[in-house]
Amino acid sequence: MARVNEHYLKLSAGYLFPEIARRVKAFSDANPALGARIIRCGIGDVTEPLPPAACAAMREAVDELSRRETFKGYGPGTGYDFVRSAIAEHDFRARGAHVEDDEIFLSDGSKGDCGSILEILGPDNRIAITDPVYPVYVDSNVMWGHTGPTRPDGRYEGLVYLPCTRANGFVAEIPSQPVDLVYLCFPNNPTGSTIDRPRLVAWVEWARKHRAIILFDAAYEAYVRDPSLPRSIFEIPGARECAIEFRSFSKSGGFTGVRCGFTVLPKDLKATTADGREVALHPLWTRRWNTRSNGVSYPVQKAAAALYTPQGKAEVARLVEHYMGNARILRDGVRSIGLDVWGGENAPYVWVACPKGVSSWDMFDRLLREAQVVVTPGAGFGSCGEGYFRISAFNARANVEEAVRRLASVAAPAMA
Amino acid sequence: MARVNEHYLKLSAGYLFPEIARRVKAFSDANPALGARIIRCGIGDVTEPLPPAACAAMREAVDELSRRETFKGYGPGTGYDFVRSAIAEHDFRARGAHVEDDEIFLSDGSKGDCGSILEILGPDNRIAITDPVYPVYVDSNVMWGHTGPTRPDGRYEGLVYLPCTRANGFVAEIPSQPVDLVYLCFPNNPTGSTIDRPRLVAWVEWARKHRAIILFDAAYEAYVRDPSLPRSIFEIPGARECAIEFRSFSKSGGFTGVRCGFTVLPKDLKATTADGREVALHPLWTRRWNTRSNGVSYPVQKAAAALYTPQGKAEVARLVEHYMGNARILRDGVRSIGLDVWGGENAPYVWVACPKGVSSWDMFDRLLREAQVVVTPGAGFGSCGEGYFRISAFNARANVEEAVRRLASVAAPAMA
Repeated sequence: MARVNEHYLKLSAGYLFPEIARRVKAFSDANPALGARIIRCGIGDVTEPLPPAACAAMREAVDELSRRETFKGYGPGTGYDFVRSAIAEHDFRARGAHVEDDEIFLSDGSKGDCGSILEILGPDNRIAITDPVYPVYVDSNVMWGHTGPTRPDGRYEGLVYLPCTRANGFVAEIPSQPVDLVYLCFPNNPTGSTIDRPRLVAWVEWARKHRAIILFDAAYEAYVRDPSLPRSIFEIPGARECAIEFRSFSKSGGFTGVRCGFTVLPKDLKATTADGREVALHPLWTRRWNTRSNGVSYPVQKAAAALYTPQGKAEVARLVEHYMGNARILRDGVRSIGLDVWGGENAPYVWVACPKGVSSWDMFDRLLREAQVVVTPGAGFGSCGEGYFRISAFNARANVEEAVRRLASVAAPAMA
Repeated sequence: MARVNEHYLKLSAGYLFPEIARRVKAFSDANPALGARIIRCGIGDVTEPLPPAACAAMREAVDELSRRETFKGYGPGTGYDFVRSAIAEHDFRARGAHVEDDEIFLSDGSKGDCGSILEILGPDNRIAITDPVYPVYVDSNVMWGHTGPTRPDGRYEGLVYLPCTRANGFVAEIPSQPVDLVYLCFPNNPTGSTIDRPRLVAWVEWARKHRAIILFDAAYEAYVRDPSLPRSIFEIPGARECAIEFRSFSKSGGFTGVRCGFTVLPKDLKATTADGREVALHPLWTRRWNTRSNGVSYPVQKAAAALYTPQGKAEVARLVEHYMGNARILRDGVRSIGLDVWGGENAPYVWVACPKGVSSWDMFDRLLREAQVVVTPGAGFGSCGEGYFRISAFNARANVEEAVRRLASVAAPAMA
């Protein structure tokens, strides 16, 4: 009799974004005229065209595939050398971070990587996540059986939650209890907070001391403006012994539909067996990819590599500039309504406190109903997200300006 | 102290195809002149250009991505409706098999799916695999901790091995011991064997009786010529209650570098909890995809859908015709040398018995050294593959003809 993975049955509700999509659809179906007015600032999905350099590279790749002499079949499971070396050189070595070409593992996006990395780690690690947090970290761990059931407050037994609050500037404190793996995300989704170098140094020192591993999600690295902020954890000495980094082309090159990201797993990183032997993780992650995948679509790899050409870099910079202009408008607009706001300065997300006494899902419903603006309720990111909502800067400029007008004219009086 | 997944340490050697690549590279490096003569009939990788219909669709998709009005960001985690419905209609309903659009789950290839499906199934299932077998099924189960360590004969403790031999025509017998999950692959990789309708009916009846699940790998379905043979397990009544099917565009549309495949998971399929409750797997697999993935690259999905247009179908048929012509030449050529041969009639693989007393890795090395022809040693697929080797029909016609000449002139005397 075939048995099910019962850990799935612990998952409390639907994944956050399908739930938002469901509510938006229900509203649109019931109010077709208002539905047509909806401005989506919920899911962090890009809206601007793919950079021309990436488009040209994909077209060339299709041309190659269309001719026998240049056809490409199976590629390396971990990615072609041409893209791994471009990434290692431009994103890391050019910034003084020691990362070797074959420490880059190409994937179809960092969403998958954040969960898949657990495949090479043991089932008995003590895992810490921040709160609020990108739900994928939590749900992946639940599915893998690394947690107990949910508690009445929506948290899962067995996870260590690190609160990110106004008081700590939405940067988690180093845990006082024993932890083996910790997910950190900077620039942060959902709060838009960043981590400065001294605080990241402290995390790396803690991890080395406790032989813990930091799973560092840098998907929003391209949005860092402040030159004093680290863009990669591998800019910090010692991180090669205690960190894995996740990166994505989704928000830099606008690849949310193209699908490409990567992990950086240094050869110096080790974990231990039950009897205390140290095992390097790099060969295991290599084996994982070679056994479970035939790598990323060839035209997609060509497109990713094109983002590192001078033309590609300039086009990515313009895209980032556009979205950061949106972030500034959202930040200023929301503040002018009188709401407290964070993020949006080195991150494409603006994190807003709901009016006193309004829950984040109520705020979501109210903004959908009264302004036809879709945001993401903070509670969807964890219990510390209650009382906040996230606005995404990924949009056309006109939509952002209109969203701010509607928030001011419709929501502000309601908030008063 | 972070802990490693120790199950990885049980994996006996490198994954088969990287090991072959390593030996080929070592030979080429040591013998550059002979290295240039190598004909690769090892890994089953296609060689012919991508169908023009797929190329056109990808170019159109890139054009869409290049314009703001038609840009596509995140798609559904399980695939766009346009491709799911094309698949369900053409591959299943048109053949009388009841499969609904949303029972199709698009992926970046069936290699991943064969392992990922284990995520929604419990850790305590008794798992059967055939021998010889596609190594991914075994290695994925090892990594997930579903086996014990290797035994001296290379098999893993805890797996049920179903021998496929000359005596049973390389079609496994139904197991007599208790089994909860069984991997079946038809047309078979590596032996090229097929299963007839009565035998597949017997498997389905067995699975329903024991509430087992058949993981049916139909990656080579496009190569079935004999109209009496089932192409999908869902052509068999009752299969919706006991089967999951894996399909791939790698060998039909030549997508080994483009990366696309899918699973079919019917809503009628259930597994049980420890306390005997029945749980439908369809919602769990949906949740798995929405949490772990943002779906397949949009241009790739467009290319896959294009294979179902009249033009696309005709182009796929021509590709299959080409490779099956190769298979016939290989089959006839190898037989004329005096070796016993199977497969190659409804499958792109030819399975050959080594000369008496020659091991399959010795045969591999001898063919590489003396004929510069790369095959796959049967032992790489399991202990019942010892004494055999696989020749892939995925090649240019001229290469196949030359490979047969070399086998005859070089290897045949050596075999005598």
